[in-house]
Amino acid sequence: MLEVPGLDGAAMADARALHMRLAKPAGSLGRLEELSVWLAGAQGSSPPHPPRRPVLVIVAGDHGVAARDVSGYPTRATAQMVMNVHGGGAAANVLARQVGATVRVIDAAVDADTPPDVAALKVRRGSGSIDREDALAPGEAQRAVEVGRLIADQEVDSGADLLLMGDIGVANSTTCAVIVGVVTGAEPIAVVGRGAGIDDAGWMRKTSAIRDAMRRGSAYASQAIELLSAVGGADLAVSTGLLVQAAVRRTPVLLDGLASCTCALLASMLAPDAVPWWVAATRSTEPAQRLALQRLGLEPLLDLQLRLGEGTGALLALPLIAAAAATLSEMAACEEADGAAPRPV
Amino acid sequence: MLEVPGLDGAAMADARALHMRLAKPAGSLGRLEELSVWLAGAQGSSPPHPPRRPVLVIVAGDHGVAARDVSGYPTRATAQMVMNVHGGGAAANVLARQVGATVRVIDAAVDADTPPDVAALKVRRGSGSIDREDALAPGEAQRAVEVGRLIADQEVDSGADLLLMGDIGVANSTTCAVIVGVVTGAEPIAVVGRGAGIDDAGWMRKTSAIRDAMRRGSAYASQAIELLSAVGGADLAVSTGLLVQAAVRRTPVLLDGLASCTCALLASMLAPDAVPWWVAATRSTEPAQRLALQRLGLEPLLDLQLRLGEGTGALLALPLIAAAAATLSEMAACEEADGAAPRPV
Repeated sequence: MLEVPGLDGAAMADARALHMRLAKPAGSLGRLEELSVWLAGAQGSSPPHPPRRPVLVIVAGDHGVAARDVSGYPTRATAQMVMNVHGGGAAANVLARQVGATVRVIDAAVDADTPPDVAALKVRRGSGSIDREDALAPGEAQRAVEVGRLIADQEVDSGADLLLMGDIGVANSTTCAVIVGVVTGAEPIAVVGRGAGIDDAGWMRKTSAIRDAMRRGSAYASQAIELLSAVGGADLAVSTGLLVQAAVRRTPVLLDGLASCTCALLASMLAPDAVPWWVAATRSTEPAQRLALQRLGLEPLLDLQLRLGEGTGALLALPLIAAAAATLSEMAACEEADGAAPRPV
Repeated sequence: MLEVPGLDGAAMADARALHMRLAKPAGSLGRLEELSVWLAGAQGSSPPHPPRRPVLVIVAGDHGVAARDVSGYPTRATAQMVMNVHGGGAAANVLARQVGATVRVIDAAVDADTPPDVAALKVRRGSGSIDREDALAPGEAQRAVEVGRLIADQEVDSGADLLLMGDIGVANSTTCAVIVGVVTGAEPIAVVGRGAGIDDAGWMRKTSAIRDAMRRGSAYASQAIELLSAVGGADLAVSTGLLVQAAVRRTPVLLDGLASCTCALLASMLAPDAVPWWVAATRSTEPAQRLALQRLGLEPLLDLQLRLGEGTGALLALPLIAAAAATLSEMAACEEADGAAPRPV
């Protein structure tokens, strides 16, 4: 188990007390109040400032199980989507510009060549087809986790004060469903989803692949590294390490869809105290994401039926974080509001 | 019935077709895609531009039924909150600065004196206690609706291309619950909520006041002006007129909490074709808001347990509108993305 510092309880108490003094009914800003208190705890000061350098890290990788025809997309789409982000024309880039976030895309395990700056930390190409073989060679899962920790260190050392998780990977919803199914003990049918979009025949192929892979992974329900090695992938291991190390470095994180929530589940097995550093940004259309979030005790901020990945949900939640911080630092306190401010009678 | 133009179907079809060409799985941006198509229809062009001059109009008024002790706040809090918005220190001001919206606060029926610029269109002070007398004098409801239409005209003529609805008014959740109860035929217990915060004794007083007022208003279930006169208020009539005229002027609107959704219900009775011009920004904690939205066929974008009013929910949804527009205008199309973009196999 990795040692992770806690949120700053004094800053959180101060933020809660400050909310009580603001010119509004207590609690009337709902989840925005929770968010501002959380951010105060993460920043260790109250009122918190809106994130100054939010960074979206998109971790990409291919999944050998795609060969079982479980996705509506061919494997080559992973590299194409990576290049689209690299070129600035993906949904993630557009939304990041809208909300003022930086985007970094990382090729952890794409089964193709990508530009040197994207591939600098590449762990391997693709993964084994997890319904019948291990995803990774011995040692690779641990190495990939360390790569993720290095990325978190790089970003935090470069000034990131909020990390947003994103993913690109054809068939990664199959892999994630397997991991969530094994860890939560759910049936294959309870974790299978439509991913980016499959037809009914694809659904059946996907469900069988998930069933076979869950059988292969079932021995490792409480061992994150072994599970990643048997039925995961290098991209998921990288994101898992990133989530752990962000907490070690006292840096809050916005989770995105199924992939990041699956990695959060794995990261919580490596470092249970890391969970308070994460906020769930978005409800995805994948049923396994719901199970992962339930296990983590996290409730998403948004539910917009997104199923694109790339961190789009995390990006859309970012303005809520900024807004939450602003209310606490900019709203008038009761004594400042004109006349006496509203107080319960 | 007022004549209201429809959304531009050709622009919407063009926006839908454009989404199919973008480098992402079809439909994978979920509600963001719906929003961008809606905005294209409202602006009459595709791709739509992010709102250039979004204006939050907060309509304030007091409610005589507050004398029945149905709110956790004294009547004077309405004027105090208006002054707090006027001074720039309210939650609405802070959030508006965050999202780039302008705030205009209007005293429609505050039971106190407010500054001349705020009170320029004031209809009256307060309203009758609707559990035992009419809210408004004969002719006042219609006059207030016309004031609302004037405000919409002023804002649209000043360049507003998106209106956000906001409200301030102690006990207005009681009045709105009555109207929604009468229009939808719900029981008093199904429409009563906690408002900004009341205790159990207050809940009982509120429920009886709602029951008595619903009896008084029940004859006008399909007559918006008569209903506003009997059990409404001048502030609600102003917002109703504003919603109607926004649609007449082809200007899209973001609804906020219970008050604006109640007025949307009333406005839909005056101009059924206005509904497509409105988007529900936020789920409030008030049960009557859910009933009103169901009747209107609208599903909120956000559910953050807000119960502050002031248009805070509409403001928090504004970045989603801007993001939706940006995806459509800035994302790479398949042919532009590096190599062939992902397409279903």
